[in-house]
Amino acid sequence: MTSIAMIEAAAQRLKGHARKTPLLSSPFLDDIAGRRVLVKPECLQHTGSFKFRGAWSALSALDEVARKKGVIAYSSGNHAQGIAHAASLHGAPSVIVMPADAPKLKIDNTRALGAEVVLYDRASEDRDAIGQSLANERDLTLIKPFDEPLVIAGQGTVGLEIASQAAEQGVTEGEVLVNCGGGGLTSGIALALESHAPQMQVRPCEPQGFDDVTRSLASGQIERNTQTAGSICDAILTPEPGQITFPILKRLCGPGLVVSEDEALHATALAFSRLKIVLEPGGAISLAAALFHGDKLNSETVMVVATGGNVDPAMFTEALQRFN
Amino acid sequence: MTSIAMIEAAAQRLKGHARKTPLLSSPFLDDIAGRRVLVKPECLQHTGSFKFRGAWSALSALDEVARKKGVIAYSSGNHAQGIAHAASLHGAPSVIVMPADAPKLKIDNTRALGAEVVLYDRASEDRDAIGQSLANERDLTLIKPFDEPLVIAGQGTVGLEIASQAAEQGVTEGEVLVNCGGGGLTSGIALALESHAPQMQVRPCEPQGFDDVTRSLASGQIERNTQTAGSICDAILTPEPGQITFPILKRLCGPGLVVSEDEALHATALAFSRLKIVLEPGGAISLAAALFHGDKLNSETVMVVATGGNVDPAMFTEALQRFN
Repeated sequence: MTSIAMIEAAAQRLKGHARKTPLLSSPFLDDIAGRRVLVKPECLQHTGSFKFRGAWSALSALDEVARKKGVIAYSSGNHAQGIAHAASLHGAPSVIVMPADAPKLKIDNTRALGAEVVLYDRASEDRDAIGQSLANERDLTLIKPFDEPLVIAGQGTVGLEIASQAAEQGVTEGEVLVNCGGGGLTSGIALALESHAPQMQVRPCEPQGFDDVTRSLASGQIERNTQTAGSICDAILTPEPGQITFPILKRLCGPGLVVSEDEALHATALAFSRLKIVLEPGGAISLAAALFHGDKLNSETVMVVATGGNVDPAMFTEALQRFN
Repeated sequence: MTSIAMIEAAAQRLKGHARKTPLLSSPFLDDIAGRRVLVKPECLQHTGSFKFRGAWSALSALDEVARKKGVIAYSSGNHAQGIAHAASLHGAPSVIVMPADAPKLKIDNTRALGAEVVLYDRASEDRDAIGQSLANERDLTLIKPFDEPLVIAGQGTVGLEIASQAAEQGVTEGEVLVNCGGGGLTSGIALALESHAPQMQVRPCEPQGFDDVTRSLASGQIERNTQTAGSICDAILTPEPGQITFPILKRLCGPGLVVSEDEALHATALAFSRLKIVLEPGGAISLAAALFHGDKLNSETVMVVATGGNVDPAMFTEALQRFN
């Protein structure tokens, strides 16, 4: 179980290795939102998403013997690149289990960052089973993408930074909008803020059709998505909240926010023109919630975690052409 | 004449108002360059370029009476937005003289940030004369875009940050590549580094056909460009180096670097895919020099100031389509 002490310890291990991303804003975005919007651009993190934090947290906490043997992870993209890069920097071998139909660029990048990539068939094979069996076979440490206390601790360092950076701007309360897949980042930030900015409340954000966390928070028990693919927000499509993350989300988070794919693309285009950052649609959902769902928000200032920027040029161009 | 004390004083006035932009990098860019490349993304600065620093420096140093009367500036876009926003935040009126062929986005933004915009014809009219006569007529303080010691001092704060942020990464020497128009940013950074990182050397970067600074440094005297319009690098098209900036450039900078428009667009596309930042072509020239002109560089590590991100979606899309 992740504690605030674990998050603070992770922050120490990440120091000088993960980037402290800035807190951005634009008067143009404030106008659209009708309130102050502070954006934490984790697309600027190493490998283009917050996932590097959890990866570094887990890798750096392994004992030297286990690290030398290597690690294994399964992921369609962002966790894959985070683990591959963090492992390389630690001099540890890494094996990443990726779906054979993942974008070629993501597979190429993961390999280029130093990982051995093992492809599987998303339709007929189970990535958990493959990961676990390869881990046993080769004596590798499996680093799960979200239901892993050390990974949650690493992602929680985003929350520590939000608390201190917002305070520098005079902000100590408000809603913190976080794109939510399995809930590793969301639960980590919620735990960090519980200690460091108790008047801030985390609101998980999801794309329409994949609102398992929002429904789970509403019903009080884990609910599954009926579909597991078919959204442009590919980074945050998980079937259900995690066994470890959900109790944290339930205890600490406000109601979920659900946005459409078009709203996510529109937010991507506005992040381009107003913040000069590159977001993938799944990384722009929280910004879309701030800009287009203000009626469901309560605070004068909202903080937005813009989680990742690993978008292909065609999708980005579509966002610019449709919404600028 | 700008001194290091003026730059340090500007840094104090900018504290809590200008953003301290991070220092980014990517192993993929290092591979292309064949050396370590650290990128200072001033596109993330308020109003999308470093110009906000010089604007804030000048506005914050004015006495209250002059500030209440208002300021005037001439600019193709980035200085315009910087002055308009800094003036608004100070509660001061601003008039901006802009070329009629400046990107529409820059003109619209300058107005939206609170300035009165006066358009002129770049080919037939002299912006200095227009600015000076409006300043006299309306009793406004003229804030020149580069040949102004307080503006140079503000831009120089980029150099202070580079010195300290690079040192945090163990880097105390190397070439610092800076996109150069009139030389305000370049000379400010050079002055800052002379004191704070004397083993770093500034190299001005310019687009082909507008290499007045490169030629001036080579000949030892101010040389003019034969053309003053017609490049996609609109942010840094000035006819010649400034009277104040050139002696600083001559004393402190290494030889200039000249890149093609296609190289600038290619660097824009790579900054999208590898750094997740939005650059305008004129803001990507220094990155292009690092990536594609390594044969003219000498140091193991180069620092790149990516100066601005105020690019139209059509131009950005062209970069992605041609170079990804």
